[in-house]
Amino acid sequence: MTPVSSLEFTADELRAMADLVVARCVEHIATAGEQPSCGNVDAVALCRAMREPAPEHGTALGPLLDRLFTEYIPRSLTTIGPGYLAYIPGGGLYSAALADFIADTTNRFTGIWQAAPALVQLEANALDWLREWMMFPSGARGLFTAGGSMATFGAIVCARERHLGPDIRRGVLYTSDQAHHSVAKSARLAGIMPDRVRAIRSDERYRVDVDALASAIADDRQAGLMPFAVVSTAGTTNTGAVDPLDEVADSCEREGLWHHVDGAYGAFFYLCDDLRGVLRGLSRADSLTLDPHKGMFLPYGTGALLVRDGAALRAAHEAAAAYLPAAPDSDEFYDAAQYGPDLSRSFPGLRVWLSVKLFGSAAFRAAIAEKRQLALDAWRRVRALPGIAIDAEPELSLFAFHLTWPGATRAEEDAATKMLLEKTTARGRVMITGCTTKGRVLARVCVLSFRTHQRQIDALVEDLTASIGEIVPSRSA
Amino acid sequence: MTPVSSLEFTADELRAMADLVVARCVEHIATAGEQPSCGNVDAVALCRAMREPAPEHGTALGPLLDRLFTEYIPRSLTTIGPGYLAYIPGGGLYSAALADFIADTTNRFTGIWQAAPALVQLEANALDWLREWMMFPSGARGLFTAGGSMATFGAIVCARERHLGPDIRRGVLYTSDQAHHSVAKSARLAGIMPDRVRAIRSDERYRVDVDALASAIADDRQAGLMPFAVVSTAGTTNTGAVDPLDEVADSCEREGLWHHVDGAYGAFFYLCDDLRGVLRGLSRADSLTLDPHKGMFLPYGTGALLVRDGAALRAAHEAAAAYLPAAPDSDEFYDAAQYGPDLSRSFPGLRVWLSVKLFGSAAFRAAIAEKRQLALDAWRRVRALPGIAIDAEPELSLFAFHLTWPGATRAEEDAATKMLLEKTTARGRVMITGCTTKGRVLARVCVLSFRTHQRQIDALVEDLTASIGEIVPSRSA
Repeated sequence: MTPVSSLEFTADELRAMADLVVARCVEHIATAGEQPSCGNVDAVALCRAMREPAPEHGTALGPLLDRLFTEYIPRSLTTIGPGYLAYIPGGGLYSAALADFIADTTNRFTGIWQAAPALVQLEANALDWLREWMMFPSGARGLFTAGGSMATFGAIVCARERHLGPDIRRGVLYTSDQAHHSVAKSARLAGIMPDRVRAIRSDERYRVDVDALASAIADDRQAGLMPFAVVSTAGTTNTGAVDPLDEVADSCEREGLWHHVDGAYGAFFYLCDDLRGVLRGLSRADSLTLDPHKGMFLPYGTGALLVRDGAALRAAHEAAAAYLPAAPDSDEFYDAAQYGPDLSRSFPGLRVWLSVKLFGSAAFRAAIAEKRQLALDAWRRVRALPGIAIDAEPELSLFAFHLTWPGATRAEEDAATKMLLEKTTARGRVMITGCTTKGRVLARVCVLSFRTHQRQIDALVEDLTASIGEIVPSRSA
Repeated sequence: MTPVSSLEFTADELRAMADLVVARCVEHIATAGEQPSCGNVDAVALCRAMREPAPEHGTALGPLLDRLFTEYIPRSLTTIGPGYLAYIPGGGLYSAALADFIADTTNRFTGIWQAAPALVQLEANALDWLREWMMFPSGARGLFTAGGSMATFGAIVCARERHLGPDIRRGVLYTSDQAHHSVAKSARLAGIMPDRVRAIRSDERYRVDVDALASAIADDRQAGLMPFAVVSTAGTTNTGAVDPLDEVADSCEREGLWHHVDGAYGAFFYLCDDLRGVLRGLSRADSLTLDPHKGMFLPYGTGALLVRDGAALRAAHEAAAAYLPAAPDSDEFYDAAQYGPDLSRSFPGLRVWLSVKLFGSAAFRAAIAEKRQLALDAWRRVRALPGIAIDAEPELSLFAFHLTWPGATRAEEDAATKMLLEKTTARGRVMITGCTTKGRVLARVCVLSFRTHQRQIDALVEDLTASIGEIVPSRSA
């Protein structure tokens, strides 16, 4: 038989292909600051034209890269740009691209310790660093996930297994009306249906109302249901609100409930001593969602879960099979497949490990502290602008506001605030987005890109000022 | 404020770092054939020594790569090597490393169409190619996952939502006693507890017994339970058995049950016309797990799910939130976050898209057909060796066997078969693993690495022959 070798390349070909890709990527990163923040997402016609059957034969790399970098990538939000103050910014640290290149080409199996023990140890180290940063105890265990939703899912499964066993249907989970939609979604995936998820009302600062939480729990017990978990949020998507984590932890302790904290946006601010106060109680959680692709500036696809009682995470995912070799000691060595849903999986820990080794903890703390200071600076200057009412001060690095003027109706304010987002973003230097919360349209600024510095905050204030001048009726001046 | 820029590099630094990494990776790939197949997984002491707190300050890339490539990576199974005939081999196509490098550095948000429509379209195209290859209808939708387990999980959630609603506890799921452990595991994650998962006995060819399946369903209905899903396997992990998919599909149609096919190992053999027979019925499934990191030779972390009725997949994962912009038309455009558990996620579709564009479908079909032919050749020659009894012929590219000789007890055969695995693997040219099935130790050979060619099959036969000579008592000759 003639060997089929068309899926393999020579060393020279491998190098030449990498050179092409690296050149494109480096150029792309170098121009991140000049790309319009909002990118260009007008792509309906393009997407229709892109549909095609699988090609029978191959194509050269060069033309594929041309199309990717000139047609497809520019048709997107410039999430890597310094002016991306929209949604919750993601990162894109270069170290992660290097790590994935290594992980993909060496392609070792890191699902079980026995297949690649030293590499699995790197991942265990990376998880342990997160554990120490979050001040979780040494018995805690964790898991890297694709994102925050699956981390929250894993926590809910742990809570369900711990408190409900097979009697799922009577279990009730509590969160706030400001919680990310992934809480209810991942509860449903875990078999906790929407009619067993209570959205507790939030207060005027968008934090969960602890009294309302207590009475909802009492009502459900009265009705014969089984309260089993509370999901608090450390930094909501809408306004950046941090639930009173310590008080909720007290409630959960009293009531015997699992306390999960969704820190997808906010957890990494715990790295900064002066933000420990607002996040007080975080390290008491039974489990914590944290997204290294947000607060550690890594590329999308780097979520993480920590569970205080590592045995609970293991109990929820443990499996034996004749083809699965066991690690020598399950307390001492980490077997990702025994702590998460997947057996085969990529090697996300290398992204985190290489990044922390290359930059050091100090660089991450400094960057997080800088984002916080930039958000405070932006908030102080934005609240002084004419027509601006602040709806949520920056507890971390996100604040929310709307436009107002004497005699304005809610509908007029909402329309004006939407227009403010559009006009400011259209200037191309910064991108900001809004949300509708408690019936009001809010504009939001979230500073969390590692490329955002003082210059972008100055641009934000200038462009908001100019846009307001075009929108707010002159009588407000 | 002084900008903190320590997480950013200059273009020259970016290029220099990539050069270091690419050089290491290319060298590693070039020597894949010379690395001992079993690698070196004796790493308990090393792992203990590797534990360290997060470094406060950064380290240069070079020394980190030194340690990775000389100490850590060699302490692992050589899953990328041509002689890796163990477990189910993974791949590691170079195109995926290029794709992830691009995805990580450009770091666009591909969870929702509105954020990067053209890139999301590439992922939709890649899913559509899988759909066409598997002969699923145009209304089918899919999802890339970290691996097969989460794909199966997604399918079980679809089936659960379709057939059970909130009344989860009465639902019963059926699979065979040869099914991968991830079926029961992902059922439990989805709220279907172990006492509601039936392991139906398999026949002498390790295929699910359809009569036993029918009577189990009848018994459960009799007991007031609600049968809702059957998970068949197209290529079991133990012996490569393919369940009678067509007959199971008939049963499911008759009984009104969801039919999921776990094709994590076997699905891509459907690309070859002459293997459509053994996989007959695959394209009738309600849902299908397929692992591009196996049959498409991509790196670990590339699982996929197809669901015949795309609306069912969407209904199980759909969510609305004020901060989520909707795609212009949910039938026409794909929103990954509405078809899977995660909102933020990496860009796995680019791995598949770039690989199919670079190589073309023909190259994948040819490679799969070659693995099949290599397995047949290996099986014909191995069964002719003295002392070998074949337990499972290669339905796809995996076969199982054990050692035997006149008068041998089962315990003696088991011990000898284990020794055969060890001695053969210890020669370093090929790595094979076994399993314990129906109380017997089986040796298995699975050909699915894109780097495996005729030379490794010759080495396998030679090394098995030599090992047998050392093990089987002379009276058997």
